[in-house]
Amino acid sequence: MPELHAGRRAALRDLLGAEDLDALLVTDLLNIRYLTGFTGSNAALLLHADGDDRTVFCTDGRYTTQAAAEVPDLERVLDRASAPALVRLAAAHPRRFGRTGFESQHVSVERFAELDGIAEGVELRRAPGLTERLRLVKDDTEVAALRAACAAADAALTDLIEHGGLRPGRTEREVARELENRMLDHGAEGVAFPSIVAAGANSAIPHHRPDGTTLTTGDFVKLDFGAVVGGYHSDMTRTLVLGSPAAWQQELYDLVLQAQEQGRAALRPGAEAAAVDGAARRVIEQAGRGEEFPHGLGHGVGLEVHEAPSLATTGAGTLSAGMAVTVEPGVYLAGRGGVRIEDTLVVREGTPELLTLSPKELVVV
Amino acid sequence: MPELHAGRRAALRDLLGAEDLDALLVTDLLNIRYLTGFTGSNAALLLHADGDDRTVFCTDGRYTTQAAAEVPDLERVLDRASAPALVRLAAAHPRRFGRTGFESQHVSVERFAELDGIAEGVELRRAPGLTERLRLVKDDTEVAALRAACAAADAALTDLIEHGGLRPGRTEREVARELENRMLDHGAEGVAFPSIVAAGANSAIPHHRPDGTTLTTGDFVKLDFGAVVGGYHSDMTRTLVLGSPAAWQQELYDLVLQAQEQGRAALRPGAEAAAVDGAARRVIEQAGRGEEFPHGLGHGVGLEVHEAPSLATTGAGTLSAGMAVTVEPGVYLAGRGGVRIEDTLVVREGTPELLTLSPKELVVV
Repeated sequence: MPELHAGRRAALRDLLGAEDLDALLVTDLLNIRYLTGFTGSNAALLLHADGDDRTVFCTDGRYTTQAAAEVPDLERVLDRASAPALVRLAAAHPRRFGRTGFESQHVSVERFAELDGIAEGVELRRAPGLTERLRLVKDDTEVAALRAACAAADAALTDLIEHGGLRPGRTEREVARELENRMLDHGAEGVAFPSIVAAGANSAIPHHRPDGTTLTTGDFVKLDFGAVVGGYHSDMTRTLVLGSPAAWQQELYDLVLQAQEQGRAALRPGAEAAAVDGAARRVIEQAGRGEEFPHGLGHGVGLEVHEAPSLATTGAGTLSAGMAVTVEPGVYLAGRGGVRIEDTLVVREGTPELLTLSPKELVVV
Repeated sequence: MPELHAGRRAALRDLLGAEDLDALLVTDLLNIRYLTGFTGSNAALLLHADGDDRTVFCTDGRYTTQAAAEVPDLERVLDRASAPALVRLAAAHPRRFGRTGFESQHVSVERFAELDGIAEGVELRRAPGLTERLRLVKDDTEVAALRAACAAADAALTDLIEHGGLRPGRTEREVARELENRMLDHGAEGVAFPSIVAAGANSAIPHHRPDGTTLTTGDFVKLDFGAVVGGYHSDMTRTLVLGSPAAWQQELYDLVLQAQEQGRAALRPGAEAAAVDGAARRVIEQAGRGEEFPHGLGHGVGLEVHEAPSLATTGAGTLSAGMAVTVEPGVYLAGRGGVRIEDTLVVREGTPELLTLSPKELVVV
């Protein structure tokens, strides 16, 4: 889809103009993928403000064929030291590349010293987060990939439950593997992150790693997992009960579900990120459980499983239509059990678009 | 194993002394794991040159329990912004932390600006690669983990072949999944990297991603995969033939195997990294195939699947006993097929210790 990537580069050029930059050295691989379609593990892009004619892509010899296929529309050079090669190229044309921005939130202090040492005649300027600003709002292609990733996770969970995958005696680790394999069966190219399966008291550990703990009747089982499709990540948490829920479990679940509904309801263009967190947090605080919700409400998802915006008490900025985020309140009672309910959604005018469609009533298996 | 980590911190203190630093701010999560045993996703460590009494570890509220279990022997503070919190703590004691190093190869230009802005009275000095210098040489605990990771990969490959996993008609993607599941069956906690399964002409692409290509009689099948055990990575490549090898396949295979043997033979304490690459490369160049070996001979393995030292034409430094490296020459005939043979080994006095034990004669399945 060369037009898609060309369009993104054109949008980035508008930002370069506003920053008074002649060019931008892009070194983050996800930003490069977003801007060019290249999916290899070594690349740099020197994007000139004047247009693609003056823009150069660099990768190394392992990717000659792949780069020709994925980035047919840009000049390509081969060099293992991709970023230095492009800085040298810029330095050879100092009038054209006089003020070249670099991704200062990705480039290390050491790497910058190296690049600056060879940038004779070129001023390397800090230019953090320009491509990330574009990536905040997902286009239709991106939402389609997110939707497919969420669908693979939904289908995996349905299969897991229907095939009796959640039964007393199984270990958390076994459940995690089955869940991950089922996502791959449903078209995921990978898992978004190591799946969390947390049974019983482990469900009170927000980021528990699955271990040999066996599922037991009466347990909460918290499942936090996601799929990757086309490079885009889904992220969903469901908490279930094995057998009949005890009164405290139903009560805890209802509280978190109510908070999650309030959080989703607050998701709309123009809403402040911190206010969305606040809408859910208020429900939990009013129940006297504020201390037991020790993390933010949600985060952006896309080419990264955690990206901007942050929906947290410290979240900055306001939401726009097309942002993809999670809403995932949790309450954790140490030593007893915890509940987290998480969806991936896209902010829209009116109601947000829900991408993770698994049921959210307390599922009893 | 608190003593293990305390010992590593003591070794790091010796390096701080040589660098004239009062302390080191460690922000890389793998270095933190190496120095403390902490395995969570957010942490920072302010290691004081005087000892653990003045050393502080920071993580966030999600990891309260985990940090207490994994890092029982250090003062712990909780703050989501872990690195800034520790810089603020240093700034509160400027005489004690006057010259504090930071990991300038990991800290971005933006992040440094932020930290420097709050480091009043503390000089933050570039101190790249100190912990990495220790990590170059593996201790017995690390080699044991590497050995277990290599054993899981070996066992997975044996099972895959014995159970008929490599048969005409299967897709590369199916083979990759079976291989990965079998590594997990054999105790891997994860895969070291997305497995490469490359059949037929795809085997000529050094870093091919498994796709829907089906295995066909007469194909080379190149398998490059690894397991993770205890955080340590194995890395192995084997190339097999489905059915009887053609003459050109046997010839190509023998060439790469000979190069690999020469590379392994050159692995010894005191050898220059570039010379080890050269020992294998010479074999391939003398056969007129130098252009078709477009990557370095190998790399260090440990907490990262690619770490120092680099065994490449541009590799710097000399080897020491206890370094864990791969030796992986490859020759790729575009459009026809390629062979890579890779082992993970530990440099020892005398003969290196081979950790990947799968056979290296041309396996015909």
